[in-house]
Amino acid sequence: MTSEAEMAAEEGYIYSPPTFPSTPCSIHLGVQAGSMRRGSDVLSTSGGRMRERGRNRSWLLSSIITVNVLILGIALVSGSVFNNIKINAIDLQIFLIVLVILTTAWMLYYTIYTSREDHAVLYKDSHAGPVWLRGGLVLFGICSLIMDVFKIANYVGYLHCDSAVKIVFPAVQSVFILVQTYFLWLHAKDCVQLQRNITRCGLMLTLSTNLMLWMAAVTEESIHQTVVPPEEGNSTHSYDIRAPGGYSSCNCSHSACAILEKAYYYLYPFNIEYSLFASAMAYVMWKNVGRLVDEHNHHSLHFHLKDVLVGPVVGLVMLVAGLGTFVIYKVDVEKGDPGKRDTALMIHYVMNTVAVTLMSVSTVAGCAIYRLDQRDHVSGKNPTRSLDVGLLIGASIGQFTICYFTIVAVVGTGALGHLNALNLAVSLLTVIQLCLQNIFIIEGLHREPFHEDMHRASVFTNPYVLQAQAHRDIHNLPGTFMETKLSPALTVHSMHVAPSGSPLPQRHRLTWKRRALKEICAFLLLCNILLWIMPAFGARPQFDNTIGAEFYEFTMWVTVVNIGLPFGIFYRMHSVASLFEVFLTS
Amino acid sequence: MTSEAEMAAEEGYIYSPPTFPSTPCSIHLGVQAGSMRRGSDVLSTSGGRMRERGRNRSWLLSSIITVNVLILGIALVSGSVFNNIKINAIDLQIFLIVLVILTTAWMLYYTIYTSREDHAVLYKDSHAGPVWLRGGLVLFGICSLIMDVFKIANYVGYLHCDSAVKIVFPAVQSVFILVQTYFLWLHAKDCVQLQRNITRCGLMLTLSTNLMLWMAAVTEESIHQTVVPPEEGNSTHSYDIRAPGGYSSCNCSHSACAILEKAYYYLYPFNIEYSLFASAMAYVMWKNVGRLVDEHNHHSLHFHLKDVLVGPVVGLVMLVAGLGTFVIYKVDVEKGDPGKRDTALMIHYVMNTVAVTLMSVSTVAGCAIYRLDQRDHVSGKNPTRSLDVGLLIGASIGQFTICYFTIVAVVGTGALGHLNALNLAVSLLTVIQLCLQNIFIIEGLHREPFHEDMHRASVFTNPYVLQAQAHRDIHNLPGTFMETKLSPALTVHSMHVAPSGSPLPQRHRLTWKRRALKEICAFLLLCNILLWIMPAFGARPQFDNTIGAEFYEFTMWVTVVNIGLPFGIFYRMHSVASLFEVFLTS
Repeated sequence: MTSEAEMAAEEGYIYSPPTFPSTPCSIHLGVQAGSMRRGSDVLSTSGGRMRERGRNRSWLLSSIITVNVLILGIALVSGSVFNNIKINAIDLQIFLIVLVILTTAWMLYYTIYTSREDHAVLYKDSHAGPVWLRGGLVLFGICSLIMDVFKIANYVGYLHCDSAVKIVFPAVQSVFILVQTYFLWLHAKDCVQLQRNITRCGLMLTLSTNLMLWMAAVTEESIHQTVVPPEEGNSTHSYDIRAPGGYSSCNCSHSACAILEKAYYYLYPFNIEYSLFASAMAYVMWKNVGRLVDEHNHHSLHFHLKDVLVGPVVGLVMLVAGLGTFVIYKVDVEKGDPGKRDTALMIHYVMNTVAVTLMSVSTVAGCAIYRLDQRDHVSGKNPTRSLDVGLLIGASIGQFTICYFTIVAVVGTGALGHLNALNLAVSLLTVIQLCLQNIFIIEGLHREPFHEDMHRASVFTNPYVLQAQAHRDIHNLPGTFMETKLSPALTVHSMHVAPSGSPLPQRHRLTWKRRALKEICAFLLLCNILLWIMPAFGARPQFDNTIGAEFYEFTMWVTVVNIGLPFGIFYRMHSVASLFEVFLTS
Repeated sequence: MTSEAEMAAEEGYIYSPPTFPSTPCSIHLGVQAGSMRRGSDVLSTSGGRMRERGRNRSWLLSSIITVNVLILGIALVSGSVFNNIKINAIDLQIFLIVLVILTTAWMLYYTIYTSREDHAVLYKDSHAGPVWLRGGLVLFGICSLIMDVFKIANYVGYLHCDSAVKIVFPAVQSVFILVQTYFLWLHAKDCVQLQRNITRCGLMLTLSTNLMLWMAAVTEESIHQTVVPPEEGNSTHSYDIRAPGGYSSCNCSHSACAILEKAYYYLYPFNIEYSLFASAMAYVMWKNVGRLVDEHNHHSLHFHLKDVLVGPVVGLVMLVAGLGTFVIYKVDVEKGDPGKRDTALMIHYVMNTVAVTLMSVSTVAGCAIYRLDQRDHVSGKNPTRSLDVGLLIGASIGQFTICYFTIVAVVGTGALGHLNALNLAVSLLTVIQLCLQNIFIIEGLHREPFHEDMHRASVFTNPYVLQAQAHRDIHNLPGTFMETKLSPALTVHSMHVAPSGSPLPQRHRLTWKRRALKEICAFLLLCNILLWIMPAFGARPQFDNTIGAEFYEFTMWVTVVNIGLPFGIFYRMHSVASLFEVFLTS
């Protein structure tokens, strides 16, 4: 119809002769848009408007798709958890299978289409899909694949008396994970210009599917954990989503079932993390559709560790000590002895208190140095940076939630005993640390990077630029700026910062401010790795300390922790990457 | 400290002599920013950067405040609902009292400060705080005040045996509602330029407080409704948030308690709506802080009803018929007879099905006319429009949720009987109608308005502009555009559209496309008013039809409906306002 012709014309594939009397204007403009795509960056006004309208329309359409898929999914998940009629687990799985197949088909289509077209992807966003995100995706994808294999093997044992859909779902999901990991690995940086409407909808479908898988996994994990504690006897819910067998008389036909079931529940957290990573990457790709990136402001910053010493050393000490206490904690908690468990928890809390306190203090110092070493903020729009900031604040909400729920529970019960006092202290300090770290990272990401190499290079080629160069340095370092007229003292200072008169490219020492910032970043980075490793590899003090489960109902507490903790893990990984960037630019 | 000096300098109040060696640059720039504020619209680069940095910093700070307040609030609310220890209701109320007092103090400070300063508010956003929003705020504010008075009178009866905090909270809340309604009525359009950091934080505090009050009210209402049905015997929760007395032996000392308690629970939905309205307005104000508005693109569009006939008439018929069935429904449901209730429900569903079907069909027709009558999209950034679109989609999620939950419940139970079939039909059609209406409104808001008056006026003053004018008209109506060269037939057509040769400003007839669009808008507007009135004045088919409560657990269903329905009501009001705007511009 009209819309297809218009869309095709907008994409610049066909030159339709003006035989459609209703939309000659759009075809005319469509050709403009097509020619524009093939080179020049100058947008003609009418082409820009057309592009704008297409953007609005597909933005709206893809948003509506997402809203509908997600809300229908939430209703199905809620129905499968809360209903009294026990029919929805299979419905939910069929819904997920349909979603997964549709998404896989679109990703394959996109990959094939892009590889066939010569100039399908003209622009790449160098900030999107950084290596830690893609690496994490592959790692968690492998774990998810193993989980799916275990699931299939497990459900094969129940095949004689349970629905076959339960085998189909992990099988389809494993294909989906393979395709998606390949797709995101290759295309995470793409700024799609062709078939923008379809691509926007496809990416939003990918996002919805991953969020739905995440939601289903969180629910399943929560229900699984709710069954575990023997003191909770509220078995009024129907748990047939959990595992075949549930309360029915269906028994496994081979002997490995019990082991397999235990094994794949250990792999659930990785699958949850995988869905979060894929969602974040799909969202970034969606934001980048139709974006024309200017590549020129991408500085190559080099990584040197030799200027910093104290931060990495203290950080490494913390990391080793933390891993030591973590091992003790895991071993002692596994034994199941309540006395041992309390000691292990106490050690864990003390370690966390020390780490978080040191991190807060150093972050405050870092913020103070920002005040002293004032720099311009990076100007210009940068969607990836805005998104980074949004993801950082958004992911920190998970950790905030767990902390505040703990605080309310401990204060509500009166905070008796050392263990509760320590728990309260850790939670309060973590809240403070999160606020400070967010401020530190976001402020750091917005500061103009230090252009050391550029300055030196330009002065080398032309010694006469020295005067102008010195003048510019002052502007870049407002802390040394007194008045508009250049005083001799200032010139000397600026010479010290950029000693461009020396004939050899001798590496000068960093100013104390830059060095201190780098030390702080390195220390925070290592501490964040520690705080990432502990929950990622199974530390669950929230469940080992029973106060949360006692204060709230157990279901409520499990839900809060299971939703909050994966975001907390994501937050720590994201912080590590952002701190590394701040380390490079400061 | 440094930050205060810098902030004050940035605001342009003081000219500090350069005695602070650490931030002389910021003071220098601060004066620039100050002088800039007093007139010119040209931003100097350094001033812009400074402004940018201040913006980022206070944006971050206010976001962090909101996140912390809200998450602590969620933890307290969850604690008061789910805990087994029964202490948190008072804690939650104390937290709310502190929040409310802080917010009231800030709003008073802002109002007094702004009235004292001569040029405190230089710019006003004409799109912000439209009259329907402010009118709704006052209306719901009055209802909330009455609710608070009832609450106080009720709790006075329990004073001899219950906490005094329960009286303090409604008393403080009523002062807050008075101050806030006055504040938002006066200042909703402000684009604050002075004390931007404090104002951002204050507005975010206002937003958090309103969201917290909303959350507390929704929880209280849900718990209240959970107690009502006698068939649900799960009284394991502690309901001491609900009302004094609960399960304790504390009895009311005066006889009006029962009536008062019943009366104020009828007023809860208005209070919930009030908090949503105030949140939306506070958010718009927060977005407008520091914005420099260009007033010139505000067209005065006039409202004429004489060109349209069919739409308003059919709409009025629908409205009257709908209100009739609504009255029958209310009367029959109140009687409590199951047979009568089912008939009433059936009439209600049929009425809704007809309304929603007609709306969907006319919306599809409207979208088709958009395709035929292509216009340019409004160019340029408009934060209020983006926000309108966001609020529209966001508020529709409430209605979507209820519909999808109903669909899953009906399909899950097998959809037996006429009543269930109708329920399913209404829900499905409502989902379709919501999608279509969102597309129609958003597309309509983005289209360039029809500049009829402007054209005529310019031609009147100078007859020689005729040629250029005719040419321009063609560009504004791409449906009549054939080629770049002007053909005689086209000139005649454009003369017909703008008959500027006639000596009197004779009103020409609308083209059929514009007229059809206006008819559709008028019809949709009246139907949305109908769909607003029914839930706003107490139609609760979600509870009268027991399928939802039976399929999900009752608590779950009550929560879904109580969160979704206020958003649904907000959505219908917002749609009415947006459709009125589309009516004017098309």
